[in-house]
Amino acid sequence: MSKLPNISTSIFTVMSKMAAEYNAINLSQGFPNFPVDERLTDIVVKLAKENVHQYTPMSGYPPLLSKIATLVKHSYGRTIQPETELLVTAGATQAIFTTITALVKNNDDVIILDPSYDCYEAPVLLCNANPVRVALNDDYTPNWEIIEKVCTSKTKMIIINNPHNPTGKILTESDFEALEILLEKYPNIVLLSDEVYEYITFEEKHISAHTREKLLNRSVMVSSFGKSFHVTGWKVGYLVAPEYLMKEIKKVHQFLVFSVNSISQIAISEYLDIVSIAEIGKLYQEKRDYFRQLLKNSRFKLMPCEGTYFQVASYAAISKENDVDFCKRLITEHGVAAIPISTFYADGKDLKLIRFCFAKDNTTLEEAAKRLCAI
Amino acid sequence: MSKLPNISTSIFTVMSKMAAEYNAINLSQGFPNFPVDERLTDIVVKLAKENVHQYTPMSGYPPLLSKIATLVKHSYGRTIQPETELLVTAGATQAIFTTITALVKNNDDVIILDPSYDCYEAPVLLCNANPVRVALNDDYTPNWEIIEKVCTSKTKMIIINNPHNPTGKILTESDFEALEILLEKYPNIVLLSDEVYEYITFEEKHISAHTREKLLNRSVMVSSFGKSFHVTGWKVGYLVAPEYLMKEIKKVHQFLVFSVNSISQIAISEYLDIVSIAEIGKLYQEKRDYFRQLLKNSRFKLMPCEGTYFQVASYAAISKENDVDFCKRLITEHGVAAIPISTFYADGKDLKLIRFCFAKDNTTLEEAAKRLCAI
Ligand SMILES: CSCCC(=O)C(=O)O
Ligand SMILES: CSCCC(=O)C(=O)O
Repeated sequence: MSKLPNISTSIFTVMSKMAAEYNAINLSQGFPNFPVDERLTDIVVKLAKENVHQYTPMSGYPPLLSKIATLVKHSYGRTIQPETELLVTAGATQAIFTTITALVKNNDDVIILDPSYDCYEAPVLLCNANPVRVALNDDYTPNWEIIEKVCTSKTKMIIINNPHNPTGKILTESDFEALEILLEKYPNIVLLSDEVYEYITFEEKHISAHTREKLLNRSVMVSSFGKSFHVTGWKVGYLVAPEYLMKEIKKVHQFLVFSVNSISQIAISEYLDIVSIAEIGKLYQEKRDYFRQLLKNSRFKLMPCEGTYFQVASYAAISKENDVDFCKRLITEHGVAAIPISTFYADGKDLKLIRFCFAKDNTTLEEAAKRLCAI
Repeated sequence: MSKLPNISTSIFTVMSKMAAEYNAINLSQGFPNFPVDERLTDIVVKLAKENVHQYTPMSGYPPLLSKIATLVKHSYGRTIQPETELLVTAGATQAIFTTITALVKNNDDVIILDPSYDCYEAPVLLCNANPVRVALNDDYTPNWEIIEKVCTSKTKMIIINNPHNPTGKILTESDFEALEILLEKYPNIVLLSDEVYEYITFEEKHISAHTREKLLNRSVMVSSFGKSFHVTGWKVGYLVAPEYLMKEIKKVHQFLVFSVNSISQIAISEYLDIVSIAEIGKLYQEKRDYFRQLLKNSRFKLMPCEGTYFQVASYAAISKENDVDFCKRLITEHGVAAIPISTFYADGKDLKLIRFCFAKDNTTLEEAAKRLCAI
């Protein structure tokens, strides 16, 4: 008997594998295909010959911890204590799994918005807790009224993802106000704020949970250098939490993974001295605009994209197939891989929407768009 | 209320930190201080400029998977299927946590030998399962009679660590025979065999669970390139399990960490083509012999050491202090850090024993021995 009877291989694995088999352009799983900044790989080359190959401390490489604190200060004006409020993790996925495992207990409720990225549910189930799904509004804004309706004394955690994967939606000032009012009524609820795309936002201003005075003492913020610095394979992320929560998270972390890849941590630490984080958002804004322009004359209808490196599109004008079948045929017949949005819904709701990753070099985007425009 | 009320900061973190504060020679936490093989760091230098910075597949970098299968074949004559029986993990710690989380359920019993390395208990507790501690015999061999006595229909897993940290003991043919007879009576028990020091054994032949026909279909074997290739900071390990168990383990893995640091995986994959694994055991055998010889005229009594890079020693002739206090004074007054053996016992049993890590360059071993001989 499985502990996770309804969990199967993640859609990102399925689609990337199928893309490779059919030699399709892979706009499914989210990762860049362009070269990493040479200044960052130069650091790796230099480091390889140094004494950087043994365990870093359990919470992270100390200079990296203090540089993350500086980054958070610079980005959001928030002061965090690197020793007690910061943890480097093997990617955001490990940060999220560890946080849920440390804080969520038997029979607790955890509110997950629908649609959602796919990594929140499994750790909740493994804690013998209940994922409580609340549908986003049709425009992908959270429906705070319904969220409040499902909150009870059993509710332990609300998970938000801002900017939101797959829809690219970012939370507004009024979203945060509503959330704050709600949380005041429920002092035991912890907010898990997955902000892995925090630096990949466009016209709208990203409001981080870091900037919300009222939330800081009950929030765990998760971020990812894999996303911010185009090195998804390095598996270096971090989380920020108030000390009383961090104590519990570290107890789990030290026996779940103990520490994180040393070369990558040290390289990122040195890179943080020279990189300008604002470049990242600009880079992806250009890519988004270019990709949208390339698809202008296609039969896909493009949804708004405020952040992340994903573009959601409707194929309702093209086909009546369900989105999984459409994505498969997109690979086999048209040589482009995408992600069916139904897989982000607990109930597999099919809205004839698919997600493209535009974190690709221009040649790839052009060739993909050529194929998509021909459909 | 903590989910792990009795878990505190791991002794390895505590001692390494204190060693650094007092500028002591750190023979506590297990990691080498000598340079990594240049052939391995050359590979990293070469790779940094290649396209190695994005996610590898969830189960591991495919060429690494097949080279691990070759290594297992070469070392033990066992054929494993890389696609279905092998998983690359962020170190052995993640392999162990993931295996326990995937397979152990509410109220199951898990047998853990005493003394034990410290990472087994927390994941068992987080599963709401019961760690059942069984004392090793005085010579650190398992007492299979007592183990059998505590086995019931509730027993889900037996965890062995072979070679054993901290005692360096390795299991014998007759240990395995007793274990096999026992397990035949309990078809539901899974064996978790932590063999991270599999290549660091000396006079006695290491018998891997890989070589036990009767165990293969119910065992999860864990190993660590961090230990084998002196790169503890890279956090690359792996586990081997039969497909029906692996399916459950991968379900957890994909949402616990998803994938493992790409550069390190690819570097190890290429290194496996050129390294001779037998060198590793020889290197540490020489270090063990040298360290033991250096301590010959000290007042420490050295226990046997069949494998691992740890030497257990009694200080009973030196002091009546408990071993934690003795280790602290060893740092503050004598400038050498070690690990108190009591911390490997569930009940903190104090036998006046401490553990030294001899994975150090000769100068370090000599200076440490000089200080230890002066006590
Ligand atoms: C961990 S694989 C999925 C990568 C990703 O963030 C996405 O494609 O949404
Ligand atoms: C993960 S820190 C502990 C390293 C180790 O294996 C030991 O010292 O026993």
